[in-house]
Amino acid sequence: MRAVTFQAAGDVRLEERPDPELQAADDAVVRVEATGICGSDLHIYHGRVAIEPGFVIGHEYVGTVVAAGDGVTEVSVGDRVLGTYCTACGACFFCRRGEYHKCDGGRVFGHGAALGSLQGAQAEMVLVPNANLTLRRVPEGMSNDVALFAGDVAGTGYHAICGDAARPEPLEPGASVAVLGLGPVGLCAVQVAKASGASAVIAVDTVEDRLRMAESFGATAVHLTEDDPRARVKELTEGRGVDLSVDAVGHPDALDLACRVARKAGTVSVIGVYAERAEVHMGVVWIKALRWRTGHANVIGHLDRVLAMLSAGVIDPGPLVTHHMSLDEAPEAYAVYDRREALKIVLTP
Amino acid sequence: MRAVTFQAAGDVRLEERPDPELQAADDAVVRVEATGICGSDLHIYHGRVAIEPGFVIGHEYVGTVVAAGDGVTEVSVGDRVLGTYCTACGACFFCRRGEYHKCDGGRVFGHGAALGSLQGAQAEMVLVPNANLTLRRVPEGMSNDVALFAGDVAGTGYHAICGDAARPEPLEPGASVAVLGLGPVGLCAVQVAKASGASAVIAVDTVEDRLRMAESFGATAVHLTEDDPRARVKELTEGRGVDLSVDAVGHPDALDLACRVARKAGTVSVIGVYAERAEVHMGVVWIKALRWRTGHANVIGHLDRVLAMLSAGVIDPGPLVTHHMSLDEAPEAYAVYDRREALKIVLTP
Amino acid sequence: MRAVTFQAAGDVRLEERPDPELQAADDAVVRVEATGICGSDLHIYHGRVAIEPGFVIGHEYVGTVVAAGDGVTEVSVGDRVLGTYCTACGACFFCRRGEYHKCDGGRVFGHGAALGSLQGAQAEMVLVPNANLTLRRVPEGMSNDVALFAGDVAGTGYHAICGDAARPEPLEPGASVAVLGLGPVGLCAVQVAKASGASAVIAVDTVEDRLRMAESFGATAVHLTEDDPRARVKELTEGRGVDLSVDAVGHPDALDLACRVARKAGTVSVIGVYAERAEVHMGVVWIKALRWRTGHANVIGHLDRVLAMLSAGVIDPGPLVTHHMSLDEAPEAYAVYDRREALKIVLTP
Amino acid sequence: MRAVTFQAAGDVRLEERPDPELQAADDAVVRVEATGICGSDLHIYHGRVAIEPGFVIGHEYVGTVVAAGDGVTEVSVGDRVLGTYCTACGACFFCRRGEYHKCDGGRVFGHGAALGSLQGAQAEMVLVPNANLTLRRVPEGMSNDVALFAGDVAGTGYHAICGDAARPEPLEPGASVAVLGLGPVGLCAVQVAKASGASAVIAVDTVEDRLRMAESFGATAVHLTEDDPRARVKELTEGRGVDLSVDAVGHPDALDLACRVARKAGTVSVIGVYAERAEVHMGVVWIKALRWRTGHANVIGHLDRVLAMLSAGVIDPGPLVTHHMSLDEAPEAYAVYDRREALKIVLTP
Repeated sequence: MRAVTFQAAGDVRLEERPDPELQAADDAVVRVEATGICGSDLHIYHGRVAIEPGFVIGHEYVGTVVAAGDGVTEVSVGDRVLGTYCTACGACFFCRRGEYHKCDGGRVFGHGAALGSLQGAQAEMVLVPNANLTLRRVPEGMSNDVALFAGDVAGTGYHAICGDAARPEPLEPGASVAVLGLGPVGLCAVQVAKASGASAVIAVDTVEDRLRMAESFGATAVHLTEDDPRARVKELTEGRGVDLSVDAVGHPDALDLACRVARKAGTVSVIGVYAERAEVHMGVVWIKALRWRTGHANVIGHLDRVLAMLSAGVIDPGPLVTHHMSLDEAPEAYAVYDRREALKIVLTP
Repeated sequence: MRAVTFQAAGDVRLEERPDPELQAADDAVVRVEATGICGSDLHIYHGRVAIEPGFVIGHEYVGTVVAAGDGVTEVSVGDRVLGTYCTACGACFFCRRGEYHKCDGGRVFGHGAALGSLQGAQAEMVLVPNANLTLRRVPEGMSNDVALFAGDVAGTGYHAICGDAARPEPLEPGASVAVLGLGPVGLCAVQVAKASGASAVIAVDTVEDRLRMAESFGATAVHLTEDDPRARVKELTEGRGVDLSVDAVGHPDALDLACRVARKAGTVSVIGVYAERAEVHMGVVWIKALRWRTGHANVIGHLDRVLAMLSAGVIDPGPLVTHHMSLDEAPEAYAVYDRREALKIVLTP
Repeated sequence: MRAVTFQAAGDVRLEERPDPELQAADDAVVRVEATGICGSDLHIYHGRVAIEPGFVIGHEYVGTVVAAGDGVTEVSVGDRVLGTYCTACGACFFCRRGEYHKCDGGRVFGHGAALGSLQGAQAEMVLVPNANLTLRRVPEGMSNDVALFAGDVAGTGYHAICGDAARPEPLEPGASVAVLGLGPVGLCAVQVAKASGASAVIAVDTVEDRLRMAESFGATAVHLTEDDPRARVKELTEGRGVDLSVDAVGHPDALDLACRVARKAGTVSVIGVYAERAEVHMGVVWIKALRWRTGHANVIGHLDRVLAMLSAGVIDPGPLVTHHMSLDEAPEAYAVYDRREALKIVLTP
Repeated sequence: MRAVTFQAAGDVRLEERPDPELQAADDAVVRVEATGICGSDLHIYHGRVAIEPGFVIGHEYVGTVVAAGDGVTEVSVGDRVLGTYCTACGACFFCRRGEYHKCDGGRVFGHGAALGSLQGAQAEMVLVPNANLTLRRVPEGMSNDVALFAGDVAGTGYHAICGDAARPEPLEPGASVAVLGLGPVGLCAVQVAKASGASAVIAVDTVEDRLRMAESFGATAVHLTEDDPRARVKELTEGRGVDLSVDAVGHPDALDLACRVARKAGTVSVIGVYAERAEVHMGVVWIKALRWRTGHANVIGHLDRVLAMLSAGVIDPGPLVTHHMSLDEAPEAYAVYDRREALKIVLTP
């Protein structure tokens, strides 16, 4: 089969790979019909994530089950399915508590040996372990463009607003929210916040198109530098700050702003990725008695809810797909994405 | 001042009463600009609630503060305000926990000596105790018709879906809901469920107009007897039943249906009023491991959230107001309401 | 192997059965070293539960893994293990949410075709499906007598106090609790309530020995008929009633009392089994705004926590074991248990 | 009356002050019978907190009500009472939600103009605003030494383990806890963790006496530098880390250690005080998906629960009182405390 492989920073290629085969009783093999390029693929593309040359990348996909082990009960050969970007064993301490994102044996598609040596989904076929947890039938009538979001970006936006599925903290309807950073995750968070009955959703970024899109989803768009986010939040929340602020950037400045715009006893949701040390104004955090939620989304835990919302049209990430290209055009697609010309690119094998 | 008084079953009258005067430091006096007739007023009208002849009735109101005690800090003379249907002391064990609806000294407007001897709001003026908790400024631009709902019907619909403010259990976005009984509270519950991101809201009643209104709010309308609610719920929930079912009727048949349509480990919200013994199929409740939430709404606890939603237009009970009449027409208004010709009647002094 | 089989009401026998064999990849076979007789076994013994003559009964066990399928990762051949009384698939909608007790494919050991045709554990060997979820290594130094409780009675007492593992509602330390019914589950609930920092645990029964045992666990013992439970609860809770009342009986009178002794806005935990209709004073339930939690315990969900407590000695059900007998004496053991001469009988093959 | 006043860094004195008088309807005046010196008093003593020379300090007290305004309903003249270290209005947005520690008008006793100009409790008498929320009758039989802790140190230890009263997150019994820093708050947190059914409580400090006291409360004592806290936590938690780690120090090193010893998806409770920027290893926080809770304790919200525990002997901070001195000896008492020779000093007027 053809597959997109990482070679070196800035260099991804289409290569031939052997078709994947079932290895465990709960494995499935999926013939991919659509696969997305994600912000985290860009980290790989930039060479900032250690990954073996030749490794197949990609972790967002929709397709059809072409083989399934004996232990696979939730989907069947022939089913049109979508998948989550990572796996979970379903048996360890963390999985038993529903904390699938912290599974002791969790692996991520297309991220090399460091995250479990699981070949990626930007390929004609993909081997899917733990299929009962990681695959779900695509609800009838749902497009590939929408289905692609369920197991990654939309689930992450859901997590940003509603907390960990193992300990859900859905928004109280009427609450106020600020989302800092309007990439695909931030924009999905905006949608989920609006869908949760937020009385105000303040969306902050520097890119005009993203601000306009957030606005089209019902948010109040605030330019990070040309406007004054802290002042605007105050104005829109009777001077208090928001009940929930989301750092969807992953940069200390965003985290600091998230803490500043949250109200006393409010919550800061840190969904943007952090890998290093950062200076935090603990005095502000502490005197305001903030709560923090951090880390990867529990996309497996959220999947049923997210699918139900997508299926009912309660949220619709469709508008985030700005480009459709063929799998063969992957090298060009990565270049386009790298130039920030696209929000979400969907590749078709 | 003129005031609507209860005389006997089926007999309410306009009578002259002395203007109310401040008694405690946290009292306020409000000049009423609009006051609603509520389903519970009908219980009084039917003589099913013991109340002294000549007692002023009514508990929904919007108006202007004309006097306020020294201890009133949250509103001022001249403010346009709305109120909650009941009071809370803010100091007892229950209030200290935010369980304002179970305040040891809580009183209900217009319900006679049994509920605290607090004269009602269907009058030109009303004395409001505990004004810091029971009054709130009307947000700019909000009509009387909408503001009237905040402290009673909308707060009760909010409670039905989101649970007690002292222990909030907001809906997980994507969850499914059935609302049984589409009076004003049921219809507000439908709105709150939709606003909470429910993937399916199934609204059940026998009255065609109410079903159509629920439909206009985004629900799937199901006729209680001409259709098959249990079958329809199954169909819409992959055979499982809803995550949350609401008994907004207050009749054992509704409670039974609520338990039948809830999924295993689901929640039944009993917002409809019960005063007597009832037969319950405990076998069904137990084998499904249902949770129940019951009782009056904590409208004081929910008030800030509900106001924020009303103000932002996230929910809009405006369409529920079917009749506007003058306070002087109260006797006729009660007769109209009694004939079930109206969903909500607003009286203007 | 030898196994205890149901024959007819009042008639259980030791019979020879073929040794169990692995059938699925996540099956294990356990050689039983100790097995308990439970209250629900008595329902079978009384012929009140439909079960095929010749079916092997029993569902509490400790033993050693003698065979394990390829998919079993959490325990290994040779491990000393304990098990839960029921199974869960780990893959369905309910399991994915951690609601293992409501698994669509859940089966109960030793309860015949009605509950999944899973042969029981009162035998020399037992086939254990879904071993990753249903088995756990016995912590070093833990006796069989204690380990036997983890997967059933202690987990049920834990559930009674702490709620469903999928939506934990642990007691606030300092809260007050009443436990109605002091069978093994009630007594474990007393221990868990004490271990949770309850400021008062009121234990109600009619059997003097059980009251004394509850007292030895730190509870205030109150005789159901010779004392006045409602008055005593008032006295011990400043007139308010308890924060949490537990019906560990499964009889409408106990449920009624549980509702009476709970405080306003309190919680009633219905862990006693119900199979039929019952009259409930909904007026009391509603006006007090009670919450109900009902149904089987999520013993799989609670297992890690319960084991940790047992292992640390935070709770100790050891004193509940009143009789040790050999598996061959099972018919006599059932007769003893039926005469209520024992709290818990442990059988050794 | 005599009162302890701040003069300058290292200089506190007994001075004459006029007896306090009622000012508002919900004020009370309390004749102080015992008053504690707290760690935060030491910050004042060190001149690190800006406070006017001559201001009366102290915020822990037990005494008798000698005057009460008309609006005071929860205590009466003649009652023996205890108080919280801060006040709350009971009416603002935050109080209405039970977030009393973040009250818009909250004041702290004995902390000068910066925290509300409320004269302190190290005096013969103290004026107590918002008495319905801030005072509670001392349960019969409770010593001053114990009662003193309810409204400050024990409530703070309770908050560290159980979270904010407005959004309680009590420990799941069986969970594991690490407490870093064994001052009075840390030691109370150890007691609350044990009382909550923790299966393991690991207590870390460098002071031998404090380690021994934590041990006497049931904790596993671990010396910060002579032992290896991270290794010991691993060892005691099957390699996972604790469910809840408490930073009861207020120093970036403690916070870092708290994040290191918490398990994946665990919670870090930051009860130690922060006022400045700090470097945090966000990579660790994020990859482990930690939750943080921070800030002052909601002692008013916790007060009923804490009192119930103290009254029932579920926790007992009595052993923390190492010194009793007279109010007149306050200057010496501060010097003793400053030399870290005492855990808690109680002054008697």
